[in-house]
Amino acid sequence: MKDYLCEDTIAAISTPIGKGAIGIVRISGKEALPILKKIFRMKSGKKKETFEDRKMHYGIAVDTKGETIDEILAVYMKAPKTFTGEDVVEIHSHGGIYVVRKILRTVLSLGARLAEPGEFTKRAFIHGRIDLVQAEAINEIINANSELSLKVAVNHLKGTLSKKIKEIMDNLFNLKALIEAAVDFPEEDIEIIESAKVKEEIEKSIKEIENLLKTYDEGKIVREGIKIAIVGKPNVGKSSLLNALLRDERAIVTDIPGTTRDIIEESITLKGIPVRLIDTAGIRDAKDKVEQIGIARSIEKLKEADIVLFLIDGAQGFTEEDRKIYSLVKDNPNTIVVINKADMPLKVSCKEFKKECITISAKTGEGIDKLTEKIMNKLLLEPETLFKESETMITSERHKKLLEKALKSLKKVLESLEKGFQSPEFLSIDLDDAIDVIGEITGKRTVEDMLDIIFSTFCIGK
Amino acid sequence: MKDYLCEDTIAAISTPIGKGAIGIVRISGKEALPILKKIFRMKSGKKKETFEDRKMHYGIAVDTKGETIDEILAVYMKAPKTFTGEDVVEIHSHGGIYVVRKILRTVLSLGARLAEPGEFTKRAFIHGRIDLVQAEAINEIINANSELSLKVAVNHLKGTLSKKIKEIMDNLFNLKALIEAAVDFPEEDIEIIESAKVKEEIEKSIKEIENLLKTYDEGKIVREGIKIAIVGKPNVGKSSLLNALLRDERAIVTDIPGTTRDIIEESITLKGIPVRLIDTAGIRDAKDKVEQIGIARSIEKLKEADIVLFLIDGAQGFTEEDRKIYSLVKDNPNTIVVINKADMPLKVSCKEFKKECITISAKTGEGIDKLTEKIMNKLLLEPETLFKESETMITSERHKKLLEKALKSLKKVLESLEKGFQSPEFLSIDLDDAIDVIGEITGKRTVEDMLDIIFSTFCIGK
Repeated sequence: MKDYLCEDTIAAISTPIGKGAIGIVRISGKEALPILKKIFRMKSGKKKETFEDRKMHYGIAVDTKGETIDEILAVYMKAPKTFTGEDVVEIHSHGGIYVVRKILRTVLSLGARLAEPGEFTKRAFIHGRIDLVQAEAINEIINANSELSLKVAVNHLKGTLSKKIKEIMDNLFNLKALIEAAVDFPEEDIEIIESAKVKEEIEKSIKEIENLLKTYDEGKIVREGIKIAIVGKPNVGKSSLLNALLRDERAIVTDIPGTTRDIIEESITLKGIPVRLIDTAGIRDAKDKVEQIGIARSIEKLKEADIVLFLIDGAQGFTEEDRKIYSLVKDNPNTIVVINKADMPLKVSCKEFKKECITISAKTGEGIDKLTEKIMNKLLLEPETLFKESETMITSERHKKLLEKALKSLKKVLESLEKGFQSPEFLSIDLDDAIDVIGEITGKRTVEDMLDIIFSTFCIGK
Repeated sequence: MKDYLCEDTIAAISTPIGKGAIGIVRISGKEALPILKKIFRMKSGKKKETFEDRKMHYGIAVDTKGETIDEILAVYMKAPKTFTGEDVVEIHSHGGIYVVRKILRTVLSLGARLAEPGEFTKRAFIHGRIDLVQAEAINEIINANSELSLKVAVNHLKGTLSKKIKEIMDNLFNLKALIEAAVDFPEEDIEIIESAKVKEEIEKSIKEIENLLKTYDEGKIVREGIKIAIVGKPNVGKSSLLNALLRDERAIVTDIPGTTRDIIEESITLKGIPVRLIDTAGIRDAKDKVEQIGIARSIEKLKEADIVLFLIDGAQGFTEEDRKIYSLVKDNPNTIVVINKADMPLKVSCKEFKKECITISAKTGEGIDKLTEKIMNKLLLEPETLFKESETMITSERHKKLLEKALKSLKKVLESLEKGFQSPEFLSIDLDDAIDVIGEITGKRTVEDMLDIIFSTFCIGK
């Protein structure tokens, strides 16, 4: 880290790779503005010498031979109040794969170096624009796939977690001062008073760290989402139910070319909570041994599901085929029977089942809200109160491990205290350990290796 | 078209869908600024009342409940000097799929309507910011996959083709004036003089249109690229050769996550010329009938190739397996024998072949430049002079058809003239036809149906 001097000017494509209306090449460093002046021409073909801070300038980008690459909008953002804390330039061209790459290539040939993944954010950290928790939050925002995960990530970026960590740190620093006072003035009176105070303060810190750690377990939903399996015979309306659950969501999604089906089907959101759908295509009336093996695997998968929706075509009634599938899921306490096609005359009703059951119409949307409610109730979730903006939740494995480590050190301090006040110097060692690891969370004390690990998971251009 | 009033404010995600550092939601129309004011908050949480034209403003985007969506940069561009000719707002957030969609959803709930594919460009055309040729050029730029196709597209956007079309149009209008003069003043003297002049002018226009049409055939390379087949037994170094040919190109490509292998392998560029690689995996020493059918198909494919590179592992020598494959390609006049692994002792030399032959090392890069040169020579291509910025090339099927139609009408006028000057009114009809179809190219005269066809192929947000 100490060797990383930010001397180079870095550049990368900052928009997702693909075809779109706009593509952006971002440049950060001392050479950003000189490079912009070399690549930018006004519509008249003339060079432009002054770029007003933060203003979008319309013109053309030229390659090193002076030939037009594309019409562009360019903006120069003057250091230090920029994302990286350095001079930043953005070149906005048409969003074609080739044209954006050509602009990047030209920028690179004019003296910039291709940024490593996460390097822009790394510089923002190095220049003190953000701390490590906030740097990681940027990645969390980009990867957020639900209302909830976005909310938590934005909260991290805003600095609520950093603030909490700072509070704990400050508390520990105060403790350290108390203990050091005991070292400097080892009169017995002071020692006894301070010992009680030290204990109290340590217990307070321990409590705070434990509370934070608790949110990690609660945050499982944010990280992993709810797993819902939709089970039923073919053509019973599984994908209609899926669409009904998605409704507004999908209306926008399908209008955007390039969104892959995978993404939609892997994780959807229900009332802002991420939901992972489990493929249970394998469950049906098995005719041979190979199929039976497939079914066994699917049943294994069902056990992982938080909720199993067993779907019946109510207009057909509870058929033999339904019964066979039902026998596989009826003992699962998380199964909800869903009778579909309430828009038609039904041959089966919820009375026939001893399980939780609901009648819906995936076609008209009837009962869908109630079904969502049932799912939430079954998981004891109240979406409205699940995550308050005022709350601080940890979602990172790295933060969890560091907090656990700090907790362990603090408990050692507490233990020593309870065994009778040992040498203050001894207490200090464990306390320093705790301060060190807490500091690593926001990056107050850190090592290059760790930084590299964090930033290497970023996509390039960030 | 007449019914399209641009009354609505439209919005769409303008960056490619995927994960990246930056994502943009673009808004165009009267409500763009009011919507921005509703969604934008300063870091302090306060509303912002004035947005300086074209200035990037740092702040946060809030949803309809006032909760933070993300930190953003927002820019307001005042009409009429904007892309669409209307008020335009861009909201730049972190480039996550969910976060960008959430911002779009909020913008839509604040009064914008989701833009149809190409609708931003359509408005640019309606407001006279660009003509149809330029509108199409934007799509060409986004889809450009080589130096050459980008160059031609950018030229179209700059208006060189539009200018050429305008010249032809002006010429035809002058002609029309001459003919109408003949109608108004039908004295014999004038008639004879003007008849010669009219003929001359028509021949000039015909020549110009014919020249433009010729570029369409030349433009085949721009549109379709060169087809190169790399043939050889397994492990002979086919993919190493591919990599060697790509070199600089791929160095950037592979550093960008999200670029699919498909894109690279379908079309690469060699000296700025698009190259399409043909899969010849099917060609090998066939053991059974099924394989033989596959080989027959591959040979069929080879006939389509402009160039066949027959690759041998020179360190192994010219083996029996090589000979069998060679027998399939040696009669093809476009086959070049490529002896690979010049970095090792070679057991075979170019002397053994009566075909064009070259020794290379895909590993060290030796001979790759010469191979590229050989390929260009074989196709009689001179990349440096293949397309000059000053030239106008047509690449659109639509333009070609319209030019052919105009040509036909003009030839009818010429024929009438040569048969002896018929009634000027008759000439006028065919001339009007020509003017109409030429006008359709840039959109001077057009119909809504045609516009919808053009713009529906755009990606949304453009």
